[in-house]
Amino acid sequence: MYVVAVSDHIMIAHSFTGEIFGPAQALHGATYGVEVELRRQELDAAGLVCDIGLALATLHEVLSELNYRNLDEVPELRGRNTTTEFMAGEIFRRMQARIGAGALGPGTASTLASMRVVLRESPVAWASYEGALR
Amino acid sequence: MYVVAVSDHIMIAHSFTGEIFGPAQALHGATYGVEVELRRQELDAAGLVCDIGLALATLHEVLSELNYRNLDEVPELRGRNTTTEFMAGEIFRRMQARIGAGALGPGTASTLASMRVVLRESPVAWASYEGALR
Amino acid sequence: MYVVAVSDHIMIAHSFTGEIFGPAQALHGATYGVEVELRRQELDAAGLVCDIGLALATLHEVLSELNYRNLDEVPELRGRNTTTEFMAGEIFRRMQARIGAGALGPGTASTLASMRVVLRESPVAWASYEGALR
Amino acid sequence: MYVVAVSDHIMIAHSFTGEIFGPAQALHGATYGVEVELRRQELDAAGLVCDIGLALATLHEVLSELNYRNLDEVPELRGRNTTTEFMAGEIFRRMQARIGAGALGPGTASTLASMRVVLRESPVAWASYEGALR
Amino acid sequence: MYVVAVSDHIMIAHSFTGEIFGPAQALHGATYGVEVELRRQELDAAGLVCDIGLALATLHEVLSELNYRNLDEVPELRGRNTTTEFMAGEIFRRMQARIGAGALGPGTASTLASMRVVLRESPVAWASYEGALR
Amino acid sequence: MYVVAVSDHIMIAHSFTGEIFGPAQALHGATYGVEVELRRQELDAAGLVCDIGLALATLHEVLSELNYRNLDEVPELRGRNTTTEFMAGEIFRRMQARIGAGALGPGTASTLASMRVVLRESPVAWASYEGALR
Repeated sequence: MYVVAVSDHIMIAHSFTGEIFGPAQALHGATYGVEVELRRQELDAAGLVCDIGLALATLHEVLSELNYRNLDEVPELRGRNTTTEFMAGEIFRRMQARIGAGALGPGTASTLASMRVVLRESPVAWASYEGALR
Repeated sequence: MYVVAVSDHIMIAHSFTGEIFGPAQALHGATYGVEVELRRQELDAAGLVCDIGLALATLHEVLSELNYRNLDEVPELRGRNTTTEFMAGEIFRRMQARIGAGALGPGTASTLASMRVVLRESPVAWASYEGALR
Repeated sequence: MYVVAVSDHIMIAHSFTGEIFGPAQALHGATYGVEVELRRQELDAAGLVCDIGLALATLHEVLSELNYRNLDEVPELRGRNTTTEFMAGEIFRRMQARIGAGALGPGTASTLASMRVVLRESPVAWASYEGALR
Repeated sequence: MYVVAVSDHIMIAHSFTGEIFGPAQALHGATYGVEVELRRQELDAAGLVCDIGLALATLHEVLSELNYRNLDEVPELRGRNTTTEFMAGEIFRRMQARIGAGALGPGTASTLASMRVVLRESPVAWASYEGALR
Repeated sequence: MYVVAVSDHIMIAHSFTGEIFGPAQALHGATYGVEVELRRQELDAAGLVCDIGLALATLHEVLSELNYRNLDEVPELRGRNTTTEFMAGEIFRRMQARIGAGALGPGTASTLASMRVVLRESPVAWASYEGALR
Repeated sequence: MYVVAVSDHIMIAHSFTGEIFGPAQALHGATYGVEVELRRQELDAAGLVCDIGLALATLHEVLSELNYRNLDEVPELRGRNTTTEFMAGEIFRRMQARIGAGALGPGTASTLASMRVVLRESPVAWASYEGALR
């Protein structure tokens, strides 16, 4: 199995609901280092899993929807605790939708087996979500 | 599959038995950067794999039993070569016992699918142990 | 010249005032990796620049005043743009006050020549403030 | 499952063929940070996945065949786009051949379950190839 | 003294002339992680050393002149050994020219005290050049 | 001012004397990531601060005297607390002696202005020693 991975980052504000979150119930923020791994059984004729430039651009577009925002006020996230693991899943779903719509090139979506999204929130904590793309 | 991971570190001394270890047969030491990944199929109602504060505290407790010690003199490790890969397994077993005893919160143990423990011993070498939690 | 450095991190929310900040005028946030370097001409009798445990504890106390907060609502920062470079200076001043009050041990303050505080805000940007301690 | 991993690096030149590569069609180069993960179900009697010194030496030998070279002129790579993901596969195959020939010690090859080779090409991109060793 | 630093990277090919370079006399390549530190005595009224967006953009423009190139064929570098330390100086000079021409905003050039350019070429080697800007 | 830096690592055991060291009074150990920065005003005719291969080899020789050892039993360190900052100074002195003896090439010693040795002991602590070479 081959993997190609690209990374970028966002800076967001948010707060959490629930006593389990302790001081993180207050409005605070995070820099998320974001990594997306794309997996494919065999390389294409050019020797690629996918066009890495398109992968970087697609990730940047997905992250631009969230960057410099207070996630508490993003309508589609309303009522959710935007934990690091939830956001890994959210970015997975947004990447998946764009890949399905051809963002990595015509025909590429059907060749990819699975994807993993990793969010690094601090030097001592990170989270990820991984799922099939087919 | 969702993953949440936390990290900490320990500084230990030890020696190895067997010609295969060459100069590492002498008493020497290591800083181990330790990462624990916890995996769960779906997030809980709060949007979590588990309470990250409890995960960090549990890891810290496990590591406190080993930190600033000469592993050659830790009774329960007597007679073992405390290689990086062995210690990854050892920390896995100690984490597993505490998680089973409720360290990550009542009911959390049964929701976790698997765990991976990574030990980084130098810029050019690391080891890990991964296993099911159920 | 000897240096000892310790690190920790905080997660904060804030917004900026001024067109120069573009999208960062919106409420967003950051994880700051924080490093403090303490400089001394000669080591003490124990072979130390200072007690590294006290240095870590002092940094943690300073950061606890800011961690999980919206910096826009911290009274003593009101009216300031809490840029990464400003916050490096702010943490310098808070560390300096505690060191002057004996946080690193009696007599240590007068032995330290200078200090540098580094804040890492993202994989592509960081800032620092450095100044004399005497 | 236990893993032991070792790392090294190479510095190579190459060019790509195909419009999809844009400016990377020109002769350029890369530093590849190379990580090799070796996986084994149970540790051996010495407490090892394999001899880490032999693993580092074997990786160094494989990389020495490629280091400081223009990959466009390496006969066995002629006509291939030496993308990061292709090179991860290529280094996998070269490691696999040496391991099969006993480079990690007599009998070790048959004990290893699988291997992953990771190539880090820049702060924002990496690739890997993973496969069974038996 | 305040510092703001930004980073980016380039991928280049080159060769060296002189027996001292050993195998690096052959055409090979490198990924250079490039960091630029800008130093200023006091912050401006907005709380900044300089506009970090402009700093990132200016660095990207300078690096675009070199990225995906064979440095042996860049006319203005002809006849020079493009060692990591030489390239740190070269990027310093190119940044300095753009800053002097107003790339970081009108009036910013005269407020900056000095600049350091760091090039990271591999996990075990890096180089830098530092000089005054006034 | 130009800088060239190289890195390597060692794994040692040691203990400390004095109540200030708390649990670190027990025999424990550390992996030290070691970085050596060499500074020179102008590049030589080849475009170098110094031969990076010789710098790596010299550092490796110095570290080989200490690697896989219990520093409590190294005769020339007897009676010293081998703190991270002390060891940075110790490695500085050993590098300086070899450089003075021509390890970086005939004539190179007199061209270098200063040197800094950094020891990274854990993800949250490091130390360094810096001094003139002339």
